[in-house]
Amino acid sequence: MFESAEIGHAIDKETYDAAVPALREALLEAQFELKQQSRFPVIVLINGVEGAGKGETVKLLNEWMDPRLIQVSTFDQQTDEELARPPAWRYWRQLPPKGQIGVFFGNWYSQMLQGRVHGRIKTAVLDQAIDGAQRLEQMLCDEGALIFKFWFHLSKQQMKARLNTLKDDPLHSWRISPLDWQQSKTYGKFVRFGERILRRSSRDYAPWYVVEGADQYYRSLCVGQILLEGLQAALQNQQTLQRSPHAAPLIASLDNFGLLGSLDMSQRLDKASYEEQLAAEQARLSGLMRDKRFRKHALVAVFEGNDAAGKGGAIRRVAAALDPRQYRIVPVAAPTEEERAQPYLWRFWRHVPARGKFTVFDRSWYGRVLVERVEGFCQPADWLRAYGEINDFEEQLTRAGVVLVKFWLSIDQSTQLKRFEEREQIPFKRFKITQDDWRNRDKWPQYCDAVGDMVDRTSSEIAPWTLVEANDKRFARVKVIRTINDALEAAYAKD
Amino acid sequence: MFESAEIGHAIDKETYDAAVPALREALLEAQFELKQQSRFPVIVLINGVEGAGKGETVKLLNEWMDPRLIQVSTFDQQTDEELARPPAWRYWRQLPPKGQIGVFFGNWYSQMLQGRVHGRIKTAVLDQAIDGAQRLEQMLCDEGALIFKFWFHLSKQQMKARLNTLKDDPLHSWRISPLDWQQSKTYGKFVRFGERILRRSSRDYAPWYVVEGADQYYRSLCVGQILLEGLQAALQNQQTLQRSPHAAPLIASLDNFGLLGSLDMSQRLDKASYEEQLAAEQARLSGLMRDKRFRKHALVAVFEGNDAAGKGGAIRRVAAALDPRQYRIVPVAAPTEEERAQPYLWRFWRHVPARGKFTVFDRSWYGRVLVERVEGFCQPADWLRAYGEINDFEEQLTRAGVVLVKFWLSIDQSTQLKRFEEREQIPFKRFKITQDDWRNRDKWPQYCDAVGDMVDRTSSEIAPWTLVEANDKRFARVKVIRTINDALEAAYAKD
Repeated sequence: MFESAEIGHAIDKETYDAAVPALREALLEAQFELKQQSRFPVIVLINGVEGAGKGETVKLLNEWMDPRLIQVSTFDQQTDEELARPPAWRYWRQLPPKGQIGVFFGNWYSQMLQGRVHGRIKTAVLDQAIDGAQRLEQMLCDEGALIFKFWFHLSKQQMKARLNTLKDDPLHSWRISPLDWQQSKTYGKFVRFGERILRRSSRDYAPWYVVEGADQYYRSLCVGQILLEGLQAALQNQQTLQRSPHAAPLIASLDNFGLLGSLDMSQRLDKASYEEQLAAEQARLSGLMRDKRFRKHALVAVFEGNDAAGKGGAIRRVAAALDPRQYRIVPVAAPTEEERAQPYLWRFWRHVPARGKFTVFDRSWYGRVLVERVEGFCQPADWLRAYGEINDFEEQLTRAGVVLVKFWLSIDQSTQLKRFEEREQIPFKRFKITQDDWRNRDKWPQYCDAVGDMVDRTSSEIAPWTLVEANDKRFARVKVIRTINDALEAAYAKD
Repeated sequence: MFESAEIGHAIDKETYDAAVPALREALLEAQFELKQQSRFPVIVLINGVEGAGKGETVKLLNEWMDPRLIQVSTFDQQTDEELARPPAWRYWRQLPPKGQIGVFFGNWYSQMLQGRVHGRIKTAVLDQAIDGAQRLEQMLCDEGALIFKFWFHLSKQQMKARLNTLKDDPLHSWRISPLDWQQSKTYGKFVRFGERILRRSSRDYAPWYVVEGADQYYRSLCVGQILLEGLQAALQNQQTLQRSPHAAPLIASLDNFGLLGSLDMSQRLDKASYEEQLAAEQARLSGLMRDKRFRKHALVAVFEGNDAAGKGGAIRRVAAALDPRQYRIVPVAAPTEEERAQPYLWRFWRHVPARGKFTVFDRSWYGRVLVERVEGFCQPADWLRAYGEINDFEEQLTRAGVVLVKFWLSIDQSTQLKRFEEREQIPFKRFKITQDDWRNRDKWPQYCDAVGDMVDRTSSEIAPWTLVEANDKRFARVKVIRTINDALEAAYAKD
């Protein structure tokens, strides 16, 4: 895989000097067009062998292009805010918005490669990490991002020669590399596992470019040219790269009998039992959240449901059990401008709780496969791929110790009608009912299908859906808190 | 100051139960109106004696109101990202947006009070901290924020009784208070310095409310009532609280001879001197940024100047000296929706560099007193108070070790005309010239006045302006880098 990058590619200075001005102008033009269109972001991953010119090339790109529209990020050390969250959180928070270029040094590939070279992880775990990277990149590309992955290469001899030259250069020696490259074994391992990564993670939507790093003129022109051609092609391709899914479409329920129809909606609690059980479950929740073991976890509760199903009331009963310093409630509304300039899941990633904290999502990332699907706010391709992206997202949360509970609060049509009418009567509830709510009611069957598909495709052992029979608010509230408690206890039991 | 909060205020349960439903409804209504208007944020500061019901009251407010529109923040421990920046950064990042309520536990007052009680700071420093808090609150109020400051009080006897009750309550004992309240001396000091803080920081725009905390019914109704009345009054006061400044207006230059007119615009560098000096200063900058002493500092460079004065080119020459991982360039454009929901300086605070990092602002917070003043994008009251707010902001930066350099790149009208015409000819520069630029040219004298006032009012020993004669780009670029270098060296010399 690296052979053709060890053959001594070189360009003479004259050729280089002659080529640079036009290349630079074209890059600036493309960058300007990128900003004007603001249709997609560009992500440049920088990897490879020590001394192969990674830093120098990035510096040069900043000189050639407009550095005001390039964000260079490093991921050497994690801050404590990052350590308290799933590993990918730090990448999400540094994603460039549409119209800009983000250069990622020390990205996900460096992390996994160093881990494997140092022997901190085994090959199976490396492969898992590669798969995770693939899913992330696939999602970014599906969202429109243009990704360049550069591997700067040197043969072992080239590297040794280069490191000797650099040793006394203060511009270089002040950065301590996490790998001891002077060791002969290091290079071999690095290249071997590097090849494994490149082989498994080169994809049509995000291919690797291996660049021989020995000659600065060759290296620089090579990277500049790849960037330019990639940018120009993506900028010209005005239609969104919406691949329509190569799959059979989801179909509406054939017999009108779905998961929701099979719920026993008559379940209720009388007032006395409710008060007793609610108090007991709230006390239990309060205790579980103060438990020392919670410091190793975090809690995420997702509330979805029919309009007027009682999400707000249920959330308030959960909150009432807790110290307000422990939780944050995120009401999900229309995305802001900054959120629209990022991939769909970005606006949820930014609210992922740190260890020891609890985030309640009042509506959530499932909006994509519910309201956006039914109302046609996004393309079928978008909501169809959302199932997989959501599963990936939730797996990352749970793997980092986050306890995840997801509720669908279900009511029947007549109960909804009654509550809508009530809301219109009560002054301090009138803001809870809008024309949209009445309009959504007409799409009841489509919402039922969407909920059925959602549960089928995103309910799994790590992140199960809980369907809550919510015609009776009391029953629903107790079931919600009890489910959270059971999930916390189950997580503690596994610690 | 606390006498009337030690007299045993109490309300019986019946009165309380009778009053709560109407209060709750009214609070919900006000909260809804707050969200609908989204004209201003509400900030609630929670302070006072241990055991006086601070946590319980906040919990209750979350139950009474819609907790989805309330953000509760604590500031017990600083994260390392916070420790690497000026102390106020952590408060800025938690400010509630317009339309929402932010509850600040462990806010600036608790920090200074605990510092003084523990003897970590002297009274003079406490007074400085109080002044700093005043300036912050004044700014927030001028930006429209509604601030409530609550001091929950108990007499010494009441406190001792209360702590004894709480000792065995797991709901309470799990939180470790940073002060040892069992010590008799602690209460006395806390109350004495607390009085000092309240006395010096009670202002018409942000008064303190002292609430006796012994009786939960009294305490809760009292806080609820204060919040409700304050909210209702602010919501009804539809006109913005723009106080027009009680001061003589700034006047245009009488003799057309200002700072800018006194610059020697003929200064130039020939090509050979330029290349030599540029290389020398860039090497010096590179060395200074790699110096170990830089880890205790950060660098902020502000670039302002006439259109086409060469800001971009100067910034590129600075960047060319550095590793792109060390700096970030922030081009200041129109604020985003999230930025518009915050005080003016918020969008700059979010980019304040951590220690060891460098942020370049390509245009800056001075937009307020330049383009916004001249074009009438804000009220005179806004830009007039901006001078003071900016001085406060910059003092906080420099006090935290940030080295701050500010450049005004100045060219004369004929140079500008020549450059505008050039830009229209060169393809990859055409995006640098717009109709706005031509229009701004007509306001040259107004901009001169604005620059003169800006420099007069915001150039000080801690944050001096550097006026850069920029008719000759070479001269300007060398002067810029040299100024940065001198500032870094001066800062290191003082360490």
